[in-house]
Amino acid sequence: MTTTHLPLIATTCCAPLVKEPLDADAADDHARTLKALADPTRLRLLSIVASSVGAEACVCDLIEPVGLSQPTVSHHLKVLTEAGFLTRTKRGTWAYYALVPGALEEVAAWLSAP
Amino acid sequence: MTTTHLPLIATTCCAPLVKEPLDADAADDHARTLKALADPTRLRLLSIVASSVGAEACVCDLIEPVGLSQPTVSHHLKVLTEAGFLTRTKRGTWAYYALVPGALEEVAAWLSAP
Repeated sequence: MTTTHLPLIATTCCAPLVKEPLDADAADDHARTLKALADPTRLRLLSIVASSVGAEACVCDLIEPVGLSQPTVSHHLKVLTEAGFLTRTKRGTWAYYALVPGALEEVAAWLSAP
Repeated sequence: MTTTHLPLIATTCCAPLVKEPLDADAADDHARTLKALADPTRLRLLSIVASSVGAEACVCDLIEPVGLSQPTVSHHLKVLTEAGFLTRTKRGTWAYYALVPGALEEVAAWLSAP
């Protein structure tokens, strides 16, 4: 069993968005994280994984609901995994994707903290 | 004085991202809102406006910090205004942009609410 778990691209180091002017590097990092979310298929995949039992789902159960090919779904899941929102675990034939606890909350806190 | 104030594209009607599978229309709406944020220049502009006195800034003070042309800056500000994150008020020669109270918090709540 192999689990891929990458950290969020934008780290928790940084001041909230509204607190002080962002420098260019921090803006690039945060934009990259938000771009991973800013796609309707990826939002749907995240919501399906997150609302599954144990916040985990087999890739085999993610293809039909979004109505796209397996390679396309796998591409979107890879983007979400690389951005730190999902982990990927191989069990037997299939890959299972799980929501990374706290990852969405980290983005939310950065966006809205005073 | 004219103020442009548009509602967030994605309304507050919807269940949080992680609560249930998103339907295609809701996913489109939320992706559009997140795309408005998912750009380094727009994040920098938002952070400058938000951290200015009264969370408002003249477009004349936004051009130099991001190092882009006025038309480019105005384009990005228009995207943020149309997405509901900023208001635009014309006073004399200049346009002033202000953060919409609660707009970022609305996105954050949708992303992270249990």
